[in-house]
Amino acid sequence: MDKQENKKPRVVIIGGGFGGVQLAKKLKNAPIEVLLLDKHNYHTFQPLLYQVATGAIEADSIGFPIRRIFGRQKNFTFHLANVDNIDTVNSVVETTAGNYNYDYLVIATGANTNFFGNQELEHYTMPMKNIAEALNIRSLILQNLEKALVTADKAERDALLTFVIVGGGPTGVELAGAISELREYVLCKDYPALCNADMKVYLVEGKDELLAAMSTPASVKAKEFLQKMDVTIYNGVHVSSYNGSILKIDNGTIINTKNVLWAAGVKGEVPTGMPEQTVAKGGRLITDEINRVKGYNNVFAIGDVSAVQSEANPGGFPGVAQVALQQGRHLAKNLQAIISGKATTPFVYHDLGTMATIGRNKAVADIKKFKFQGFFAWLLWMFVHLLSLAGFSNKAIVFLNWAINYLTRNSDNRLIIRYFKTDTMTVDTIPH
Amino acid sequence: MDKQENKKPRVVIIGGGFGGVQLAKKLKNAPIEVLLLDKHNYHTFQPLLYQVATGAIEADSIGFPIRRIFGRQKNFTFHLANVDNIDTVNSVVETTAGNYNYDYLVIATGANTNFFGNQELEHYTMPMKNIAEALNIRSLILQNLEKALVTADKAERDALLTFVIVGGGPTGVELAGAISELREYVLCKDYPALCNADMKVYLVEGKDELLAAMSTPASVKAKEFLQKMDVTIYNGVHVSSYNGSILKIDNGTIINTKNVLWAAGVKGEVPTGMPEQTVAKGGRLITDEINRVKGYNNVFAIGDVSAVQSEANPGGFPGVAQVALQQGRHLAKNLQAIISGKATTPFVYHDLGTMATIGRNKAVADIKKFKFQGFFAWLLWMFVHLLSLAGFSNKAIVFLNWAINYLTRNSDNRLIIRYFKTDTMTVDTIPH
Repeated sequence: MDKQENKKPRVVIIGGGFGGVQLAKKLKNAPIEVLLLDKHNYHTFQPLLYQVATGAIEADSIGFPIRRIFGRQKNFTFHLANVDNIDTVNSVVETTAGNYNYDYLVIATGANTNFFGNQELEHYTMPMKNIAEALNIRSLILQNLEKALVTADKAERDALLTFVIVGGGPTGVELAGAISELREYVLCKDYPALCNADMKVYLVEGKDELLAAMSTPASVKAKEFLQKMDVTIYNGVHVSSYNGSILKIDNGTIINTKNVLWAAGVKGEVPTGMPEQTVAKGGRLITDEINRVKGYNNVFAIGDVSAVQSEANPGGFPGVAQVALQQGRHLAKNLQAIISGKATTPFVYHDLGTMATIGRNKAVADIKKFKFQGFFAWLLWMFVHLLSLAGFSNKAIVFLNWAINYLTRNSDNRLIIRYFKTDTMTVDTIPH
Repeated sequence: MDKQENKKPRVVIIGGGFGGVQLAKKLKNAPIEVLLLDKHNYHTFQPLLYQVATGAIEADSIGFPIRRIFGRQKNFTFHLANVDNIDTVNSVVETTAGNYNYDYLVIATGANTNFFGNQELEHYTMPMKNIAEALNIRSLILQNLEKALVTADKAERDALLTFVIVGGGPTGVELAGAISELREYVLCKDYPALCNADMKVYLVEGKDELLAAMSTPASVKAKEFLQKMDVTIYNGVHVSSYNGSILKIDNGTIINTKNVLWAAGVKGEVPTGMPEQTVAKGGRLITDEINRVKGYNNVFAIGDVSAVQSEANPGGFPGVAQVALQQGRHLAKNLQAIISGKATTPFVYHDLGTMATIGRNKAVADIKKFKFQGFFAWLLWMFVHLLSLAGFSNKAIVFLNWAINYLTRNSDNRLIIRYFKTDTMTVDTIPH
């Protein structure tokens, strides 16, 4: 057990995502010792993972070292650690880097891909919730294009050139758009021998519309954009199986494909040790309106791993960056109130709007009462995402990549730096 | 066997390094079918690998997709392939992507790390000849700094904070300088708890001076620079063993360290199938003065994998990018001469000079008669390397990174995106 160097209360935050980082920042001047734990040494800007997966930007541009964010914050410590268990009886977090006692614990572990218990899908489809997984997708796409070039068997080549994205939320829509643009702008340039081959892009969504969390105009327009870009869309159907070659949909459709990207669901990343009765549907921790986990006085949960259950918001909040950011910021105030014996205030979500980008000059936006689609939404999407990236150099480098990609309709980032072994669905451990 | 689509002679080039790419480019307007094979889909700018390894720049900045280089070249084809064997009797290259017949074969496979048959060193020390290996070193350095933070045992912590670079050529000198600058500028900022810890950097070189291939003023000044930066230098000694914890030097010195970087030698990457009598010392293919491999009429070797043996140059040429570039360019002329029945001309090396950078404002340069060291050499080093990078965006992004690093004395690129397992010395296959 580590020693606590002073008598200030210690807040241990698990997870350096949007919520955890925001909370730690806002505790800067509080008489509190802040310890942030994460299994990565960097914060990931998840909204742009799909651009890493499709080679538009570099992986390093959407990661920012956590130590760099907090360089000057005196009450802050970061440890790189995997959390093994939470012992709420003794108020201890057990990790690969050692055990840490806490006065207050904040679980900000986010969400991971949900395969809904289907192990075959978990094994054969490609999730995209972190940088490593995005790079795996980038490698898979590029490796399969290369393979298609030297495959004589037409059925095999067609399967290598068929891309199925499962899930019609923002991630699925953005991936389908980006892969369709690879076909439109890059295929003939970089793979002239595949120019006349029949590369196919499918998007499969269980609900009757795409972007179901957005307005009807956004959903309708997104579908229209994608259809114009020759993406085949299946709405109101589900994938029933995929064995690495044959994808079956429950409307009877069978697709031969070597590329299935899974963006059909998420579940909270609840650490081991949290009792079952604290976990709601979707693997989220049930919290009250100040983000305190059900049944605990000193354990909190924010962001994607939390499900706020309050009378004011019976449906909870969406799993988006804005909720995590605002909950982190609000919990910083409430923690200071609790420590100084003052009254806490319930969390209120301010919906700043939702956007999704489909392609070049094409995005959809719902900003409060304003619903708009097309070029202006696309400009706004870029502007907001650029400004949200951590660090000046990341902003500058992503901007530069976007400008070059826009002008050349191509990118220099399509490198296979992680060789993906499609037989075992793992990464090569040999330097390649 | 693939079909040849026309009657033009086919040149198969193995390797997309400096030599292979240059040769393929210069054959652009020749009545020749050019097929380039590489196990990567990108060209690597090896001179900056050490900056990726130490987190100064992004990996993607020093890789450039080969397909992008040759986008508009009509007589050019690229296939991603590992070469399994060369069958010189039937003029066939056997690869993982299929078999290719050739009229002329050019082996431009470069060099790889030479452990001189010591399997222990090969297992436990970190080589740096490609992007994956550079990222492994980046991960190892950062993981061991993180581990040092939470290690209570002082001896263990000291070993985690001890860095030994073996080899005092340009790579070793540049690595030693960059790691020493990490200690100088980054340790206290990013790892305040390690600020007073005793991080050590050693450089071990078998010859009596560093940068033995350069002038005496360069060698002397490089040593002086490194010593001022508190790098402990051992000259004229050799590493006798390293078991993952204890490094033994043949002068009796024993160093406890968890970080040994191996830059002590290279050997040619001769493909399987080339007979033993064509291979010289250092695993290089013996060629004549037009880079034709000994005993063959239609097999050539250029760059690091070749050893030119001619009366004019009995010592051969150094293993540097300039030699590969010039040999590639010259062979393009000779191949066209051979095909059109004209006379070939012997290769003549034009030494444009040698440079090595040690750190901020510190480099050494030998440019023909001019030997200079310090700030101006450093500026020139940066200028030459920037201009040599492939692609506008790589140039711009590396420049931006350098400018930010220079101003802030820190970098945003220190992400552990490949988790390096120190127990097995392999990369984690699980997305991390």
